[in-house]
Amino acid sequence: MSDIRIETDSMGEIEVAADRYWGAQTQRSLQNFKIGGEKMPPALIKALGTQKLAAARTNIELGVLDKKLGETICQAAQEVIDGKLTDHFPLVVWQTGSGTQSNMNTNEVIAGRANELLTGERGGKSPIHPNDHCNMGQSSNDTFPSAMSIAGVRQLSEETIPALEKLHASLDAKAKAYEKIIKIGRTHLMDATPLTLGQEFSGYAKQIEYGIARIKNTLPRLAELAQGGTAVGTGLNSVEGFAEKFAAQVSDITKLPFTTAPNKFEALAAHDAIIEASGALNVLAASLMKIANDIRMLGSGPRCGLGELLLPANEPGSSIMPGKVNPTQAEAMTMICAQVMGNHTTITISGSNGHFELNVFKPVMIYNLLQSAKLIGDACDSFRENCVDGIEANEERITTLMQQSLMLVTALNPHIGYDNAAKVAKKAYVENSTLKEAAVALGLLTPEEFDEKVRPENMVGPRKA
Amino acid sequence: MSDIRIETDSMGEIEVAADRYWGAQTQRSLQNFKIGGEKMPPALIKALGTQKLAAARTNIELGVLDKKLGETICQAAQEVIDGKLTDHFPLVVWQTGSGTQSNMNTNEVIAGRANELLTGERGGKSPIHPNDHCNMGQSSNDTFPSAMSIAGVRQLSEETIPALEKLHASLDAKAKAYEKIIKIGRTHLMDATPLTLGQEFSGYAKQIEYGIARIKNTLPRLAELAQGGTAVGTGLNSVEGFAEKFAAQVSDITKLPFTTAPNKFEALAAHDAIIEASGALNVLAASLMKIANDIRMLGSGPRCGLGELLLPANEPGSSIMPGKVNPTQAEAMTMICAQVMGNHTTITISGSNGHFELNVFKPVMIYNLLQSAKLIGDACDSFRENCVDGIEANEERITTLMQQSLMLVTALNPHIGYDNAAKVAKKAYVENSTLKEAAVALGLLTPEEFDEKVRPENMVGPRKA
Amino acid sequence: MSDIRIETDSMGEIEVAADRYWGAQTQRSLQNFKIGGEKMPPALIKALGTQKLAAARTNIELGVLDKKLGETICQAAQEVIDGKLTDHFPLVVWQTGSGTQSNMNTNEVIAGRANELLTGERGGKSPIHPNDHCNMGQSSNDTFPSAMSIAGVRQLSEETIPALEKLHASLDAKAKAYEKIIKIGRTHLMDATPLTLGQEFSGYAKQIEYGIARIKNTLPRLAELAQGGTAVGTGLNSVEGFAEKFAAQVSDITKLPFTTAPNKFEALAAHDAIIEASGALNVLAASLMKIANDIRMLGSGPRCGLGELLLPANEPGSSIMPGKVNPTQAEAMTMICAQVMGNHTTITISGSNGHFELNVFKPVMIYNLLQSAKLIGDACDSFRENCVDGIEANEERITTLMQQSLMLVTALNPHIGYDNAAKVAKKAYVENSTLKEAAVALGLLTPEEFDEKVRPENMVGPRKA
Amino acid sequence: MSDIRIETDSMGEIEVAADRYWGAQTQRSLQNFKIGGEKMPPALIKALGTQKLAAARTNIELGVLDKKLGETICQAAQEVIDGKLTDHFPLVVWQTGSGTQSNMNTNEVIAGRANELLTGERGGKSPIHPNDHCNMGQSSNDTFPSAMSIAGVRQLSEETIPALEKLHASLDAKAKAYEKIIKIGRTHLMDATPLTLGQEFSGYAKQIEYGIARIKNTLPRLAELAQGGTAVGTGLNSVEGFAEKFAAQVSDITKLPFTTAPNKFEALAAHDAIIEASGALNVLAASLMKIANDIRMLGSGPRCGLGELLLPANEPGSSIMPGKVNPTQAEAMTMICAQVMGNHTTITISGSNGHFELNVFKPVMIYNLLQSAKLIGDACDSFRENCVDGIEANEERITTLMQQSLMLVTALNPHIGYDNAAKVAKKAYVENSTLKEAAVALGLLTPEEFDEKVRPENMVGPRKA
Repeated sequence: MSDIRIETDSMGEIEVAADRYWGAQTQRSLQNFKIGGEKMPPALIKALGTQKLAAARTNIELGVLDKKLGETICQAAQEVIDGKLTDHFPLVVWQTGSGTQSNMNTNEVIAGRANELLTGERGGKSPIHPNDHCNMGQSSNDTFPSAMSIAGVRQLSEETIPALEKLHASLDAKAKAYEKIIKIGRTHLMDATPLTLGQEFSGYAKQIEYGIARIKNTLPRLAELAQGGTAVGTGLNSVEGFAEKFAAQVSDITKLPFTTAPNKFEALAAHDAIIEASGALNVLAASLMKIANDIRMLGSGPRCGLGELLLPANEPGSSIMPGKVNPTQAEAMTMICAQVMGNHTTITISGSNGHFELNVFKPVMIYNLLQSAKLIGDACDSFRENCVDGIEANEERITTLMQQSLMLVTALNPHIGYDNAAKVAKKAYVENSTLKEAAVALGLLTPEEFDEKVRPENMVGPRKA
Repeated sequence: MSDIRIETDSMGEIEVAADRYWGAQTQRSLQNFKIGGEKMPPALIKALGTQKLAAARTNIELGVLDKKLGETICQAAQEVIDGKLTDHFPLVVWQTGSGTQSNMNTNEVIAGRANELLTGERGGKSPIHPNDHCNMGQSSNDTFPSAMSIAGVRQLSEETIPALEKLHASLDAKAKAYEKIIKIGRTHLMDATPLTLGQEFSGYAKQIEYGIARIKNTLPRLAELAQGGTAVGTGLNSVEGFAEKFAAQVSDITKLPFTTAPNKFEALAAHDAIIEASGALNVLAASLMKIANDIRMLGSGPRCGLGELLLPANEPGSSIMPGKVNPTQAEAMTMICAQVMGNHTTITISGSNGHFELNVFKPVMIYNLLQSAKLIGDACDSFRENCVDGIEANEERITTLMQQSLMLVTALNPHIGYDNAAKVAKKAYVENSTLKEAAVALGLLTPEEFDEKVRPENMVGPRKA
Repeated sequence: MSDIRIETDSMGEIEVAADRYWGAQTQRSLQNFKIGGEKMPPALIKALGTQKLAAARTNIELGVLDKKLGETICQAAQEVIDGKLTDHFPLVVWQTGSGTQSNMNTNEVIAGRANELLTGERGGKSPIHPNDHCNMGQSSNDTFPSAMSIAGVRQLSEETIPALEKLHASLDAKAKAYEKIIKIGRTHLMDATPLTLGQEFSGYAKQIEYGIARIKNTLPRLAELAQGGTAVGTGLNSVEGFAEKFAAQVSDITKLPFTTAPNKFEALAAHDAIIEASGALNVLAASLMKIANDIRMLGSGPRCGLGELLLPANEPGSSIMPGKVNPTQAEAMTMICAQVMGNHTTITISGSNGHFELNVFKPVMIYNLLQSAKLIGDACDSFRENCVDGIEANEERITTLMQQSLMLVTALNPHIGYDNAAKVAKKAYVENSTLKEAAVALGLLTPEEFDEKVRPENMVGPRKA
Repeated sequence: MSDIRIETDSMGEIEVAADRYWGAQTQRSLQNFKIGGEKMPPALIKALGTQKLAAARTNIELGVLDKKLGETICQAAQEVIDGKLTDHFPLVVWQTGSGTQSNMNTNEVIAGRANELLTGERGGKSPIHPNDHCNMGQSSNDTFPSAMSIAGVRQLSEETIPALEKLHASLDAKAKAYEKIIKIGRTHLMDATPLTLGQEFSGYAKQIEYGIARIKNTLPRLAELAQGGTAVGTGLNSVEGFAEKFAAQVSDITKLPFTTAPNKFEALAAHDAIIEASGALNVLAASLMKIANDIRMLGSGPRCGLGELLLPANEPGSSIMPGKVNPTQAEAMTMICAQVMGNHTTITISGSNGHFELNVFKPVMIYNLLQSAKLIGDACDSFRENCVDGIEANEERITTLMQQSLMLVTALNPHIGYDNAAKVAKKAYVENSTLKEAAVALGLLTPEEFDEKVRPENMVGPRKA
């Protein structure tokens, strides 16, 4: 038995490895695009399988696809979804900008596998044809964007958001656990008025809470499926009702609320919903950068930094400095944030460069969105498990720092005025004395008055009206 | 009468021009930050005036501010809002990152003007003190972000969105006006199946419709006011209820739905809502780049381009080529899109770099957001008035191009299959013949069958089930 | 006397304010582009004046321009260069993407002023015609890029680089002044082995030194003038030799080494040299962000931060916290860095979007480059004068921190091995003891051996071979 | 025989798969950083092998490393370089930001393999210890940046630049081949004066020529090795001369001109040279985006576009439109350009966020630089082989378009003036006549004069003086 077989397309014959399910067009792409090593992401391949399953079911339902052929297509598509045929998707991101070659890869693999199921022979176009049956009523131009939507919504809904919710819960738990620990506040990196460590963490938790809401806001538009637009958005060669029934099938398969795009021209020619979703991740990248930076700075030391937090020691930190432990989870997180911000630039540029009826930056857009979504999700899990959950407050250090702060003087503003309070702070700073000593020396308050008015525990909220 | 007067702050005395309302801290900033020429945007100065008005009203209402002093502050603040004191706000964006100096500029100008109203003498700190009265219960750290929110929400609500709505209406009108004009579709810039010119414009209209929705989605979070957080988010030195009453005052003054931020720590230390709002403008920049590009490419020519649209000729296009007319409005628009995308990078980087209780990139963030919002709004107006509304379809050209397209062959797929249809297209292309000639020559259809099946007017939608 | 006059262009008549020098095309642009408020930067107007002066001189030299007319043009162009006619350049950045309208603004103002000089009547086209004389042998398409080159090279050479050189000198002076102060090093924000404060500053100085070299590297390509390409790069309607003589004139006027672009097609259709120059500023933005961040973190406190540096107190830092002083110069600097990075995105996107013979993002590209160049220059001056030069080392604090660091243990690696050294550090950390106590307790060294081997002053360089 | 073995580090024992060469620290990283799937790039692993080989040779040369142990280390390091141990480098990019874990991975694998060579037993720390021997005189903090430099310089020198040079040669060959084909120029996408197709391609070639020069400009700084700085830049625990000898070894191994960084503090704490190199690739991304866009637009059609170029038909273009061929190579190229621009944002942000003695965004910076460099290189090869080399000029179409252009009128400017020429062009446009008919009808020239003056072949260069 030969280890190659001949496949054909409208350009003619081409050799394919006999053990591969793919056909001529996949093979041509392999040969014509030897660029980089970034393959189409598994989440997108799974989504293409889902798209083909939903399309075949819809075509059967509409009576345009022979039931037996259709059900075999469904079976093969399910194998794609289940990851059984991953090795048969060899194409890279850097191919045609419509994703046509990955759509055809899917059509060819499903046809090749379905033909094997029906005839015992792998590949080919009969009885099941990659275009006429697997791609029935479809074009790459509506198929690939539909797969982009499916993959994007799933990744965000099933991995990114749950990971963010867990991180939020952890930060929120810290906010509650630390609600009695009063610490120095820092503005401009300089000593400021006090707050509780719990209040500080509550800000982080709020950022994540809002970040989740921001992602959720983008999902309805991302969940609008282009399917039914076919080549240019008109729906030529599809049957009326296909678009709506297809969306219902996808929702049924994924258990997520997909809809059919109300305007298919927009859905093919632009991918604003991808930019929008990436934008939500970009906000999260900024939030997480800030949170991770704060945590590593608060944990800096052990003896020459701020030292207010004790971070878990997960591994030796240095190949030369014995005993060194570093905030490595924060580092991975901040690197990911930088990546997500750059991916957002890539996605924005790509989205702006569509022409007429088609944006042809589809693969690079979904590749970057899925990478961003996965990295944020994974990094939140890792950061939470290996850092946040194990954080301990260094209460002794926190209290020492807080008590020596000059900015406790702010509590005196309503009593002696801003200008007098400034004199107290400056005197204490210059003389390296306490605020109390300075205030009394300036004759502005008695020691008793000072003690009554300058109480950190009364400085962490507004005063009663 | 001297043309200077002496003002003081906690650092000592400093000379100020006698005809200026500002005081010592404004003067110091002027001298210490001789950087660039970008002043704080007028919309932000107006918002700071609004913030001071609302704060004074709230303090009067709470009974902590003397009524007479308070009302004089309100009068001066109103003059700031009305733009009467613009020349007294000389500070640049590139100052302290908390915007403290512009907050103090506002406090000083209002105090200086209110003192003049009360005493006839400009400036000074008595009877009205910039800190103790104008800044009562406030910190720059909650004041400036509140002004950012007020300015951002107003600019977006009152200028950007209305301009977008008008552009949407224009595009939508074109979509309806052109719903019968069948034209060649183009995917990958290559000839594709037909659609109507109205369908093409409907995609543009949809992009703008969604863009408006995207901005609106961001407003509730942008409208959360930091006021009440004072220095670090705790609300120290403010009175309970100040935050809520202040938000109500701002809503009353602006007739827009502002709320008090539920978590003041997040509201001072991060400006994720600014990044989010900028992100919505970033999506619009991508949308508008695509639309403007399409329109200028469709209007290219007059004799050697696509020539499907006739754009208004607003001015001579060339200093050397007589009679040349260029798509200049599209060019202004696309330049603005590039600016907005870059501003988004600036805002994202700025937003990610907060430390502890305060983000100190506030001025650069609001400067860029307001610039983006204004540019998008103005450019939409200009593009609509001077370009979109005057577009005419070159129907003769459109029809000629459409009829000679080889991609009409796609209508034959359901009848003769993809592979046979490909043969027809290739034969016609190679022989420079019509599709019909090729199809008949290949014996695949009779001329009558061809005419029945290949009808552009039947190719702009799905077929009946 | 009427306060308006009528000007004409190929589109017909239009009213212009009688006291303005500009003509019909400037007026049309004013009316058609009511977008934003960002006018063409003064440095670019000056460069356009320089371009017209050099062109007129060249045309006289080539004998194609009447000497008397030509010299009057030169006189008017010189007034543009000298800033005497600034009020006659009202156009915004957001105009035609070729800058044609600003080129015509210059042609019209120079013609209008030259005609006044010759006839006593302002404006018009006779005896000097804006196109036929002022624009002789030129097109906006080579004129405007030439002005971009002139403005960019001048701004970078005359302002940005000198400011960087001064900052470099200041940092270098600190590096030398602090070469004996041994301090704790910090990696991952965690305590590490010691270095001198001078070494730390030497790294900053090196970054700036390299940044200057990077800018200088870009100047030769930026200094290539497009002039002589006219409309599409071919030089149609210019005379042989015009390009080279023009470049010589510009070099003579500016005393900077300009050359004629060897390929005019590249010079009109792309502005890669602008992207490259912006890229050099982008690296500097990253460098300055790092330096300013370090300095403000090292100066954090006064009591609850690192406190190793004392930064100048230039102004009161807080409207609520009396006596607070903030690292405001570092804040202005880091905001500028974020702006420059975003401008670089804008410039990159703009540069990538040229079509065929012309890039039509010229105004936005030069606007952003000049802003970045000016901001970096001004910010370096301000940062140096108001911060760096006034920095003082807090030697007591520096020494205290350094001596208690556990990472001094690294010096023991070559003697007791990494694993044993790690045990010492861990024991000292857990028991809150000194390294010496721990090392001796573990029996690894005698106290004398420890004192001999762990000497910070021996840890700031490699050991003798 | 067990399938696990026990490895240890300063944190204690940990299980490792018995068939892996790595040790405890690699294993901990694997477990603690389950983020994404992006492994350290092979080019970086090879560079780490090179770094270890050079370090071992240097230590032997300096007499600090036992020769037998050293040579075994060299042997194992060579196996890393040769790619024989790739499966033993399982760590992802998203780890500690110093790359310590990949440095330790390298130390452990080399020690583990060297110990096997010496003792027959895989892994462990004896006789060769990962830290004491493989990392002798080194720290991750100078090792990893050295590997970054080595990998970056090699990728750019050995793959990116050669691919660019080949593309340049192809474009230059087209420029020469097409030097006689006169075509319509297009500015603002509108018909402009003519040029040759060769001139158009010469602009593309020039962009690439300059792009190569830009990359080469960055190599000297990128080739500065941090090695010798050890933990914080001081060189503690290295021996004098190590840095210089190491650089010589690397140059010897790679045959590329590496040097030792003159300032090690800069070399550890910042990676400006990476940003600079990425900046050069960013300019190329803009250049290539422009070139690929032009080529696909010039090739648009076949019947309803510009149709001036015929691009190779490499594969069927559509799953629904039979016979469609698309400019897929241009699409892959432009997607890559967008990726490179986004990577540049990531690198810039990462580079700006270093703290004190160490930038801890090292892995993400080199990952993105190597991806950009590889993608540009591969895409240039693919674009050249599968597109540029196969381009054919559609001369008939080019001539037809050129001859009907109204902008040939520009040749009349010197003869009848700009305003009269504009009248001719407008009349011809409105009446759909030829320029000649219009000019004669207006009485401005005789037919003979017109024919003499309006000659496209005389319009593609300046006129004789």
